[in-house]
Amino acid sequence: MDILFLALADQTRRDVVERLTHGEAPIKELAAPHDMALPSFLKHIDRLEDAGVVTSRKVGRQRIVALTPEAFGPAETWIDRQKRVWEGRLDRLEAVAKRIEAETNPFPKDET
Amino acid sequence: MDILFLALADQTRRDVVERLTHGEAPIKELAAPHDMALPSFLKHIDRLEDAGVVTSRKVGRQRIVALTPEAFGPAETWIDRQKRVWEGRLDRLEAVAKRIEAETNPFPKDET
Repeated sequence: MDILFLALADQTRRDVVERLTHGEAPIKELAAPHDMALPSFLKHIDRLEDAGVVTSRKVGRQRIVALTPEAFGPAETWIDRQKRVWEGRLDRLEAVAKRIEAETNPFPKDET
Repeated sequence: MDILFLALADQTRRDVVERLTHGEAPIKELAAPHDMALPSFLKHIDRLEDAGVVTSRKVGRQRIVALTPEAFGPAETWIDRQKRVWEGRLDRLEAVAKRIEAETNPFPKDET
């Protein structure tokens, strides 16, 4: 999971992911919009591939990169779980607050 | 966004977030399960606070840390958008495949 969040913690790598949601592409095309040396760009692709976010394959003299969107699953699930625990806690706090109000308010709204 | 993904790219920091979904806590309590020196642990809290994932306040001689779950918003939205673009593309590919099949199949299923 560290490696997945690290892979996404960089604007160049997120740009590559955004481009690949529209379909696979050769490295050269992916590198074109980025003002950096090819070896530096290839390191970004390596990071994405290590994290399972992309796969690449050689076709002739080109390397084609494709997205593996399932790779986001663990990150999504983790964030989602934190939100659900948090929201569950807020719901319980609200229920407790309502019960205390009902027990201490001598003129409950519903019974006036 | 880099800083947010980086904040989540560490097991200790994710543990802290998971603990805080159950409610705010003093630094000492948060540090207890982690086998590391307090200054190292405080750096993790700083990283989370810099990313807006937690806030902290001093109460007497304690520092209390609380979660800011809204901070996950940009990360969630970004991941979600990538998935939607990808799935939209799959839907369009499927539609094209069906059209080609309909145009080239001399015996379409529906008309036999």
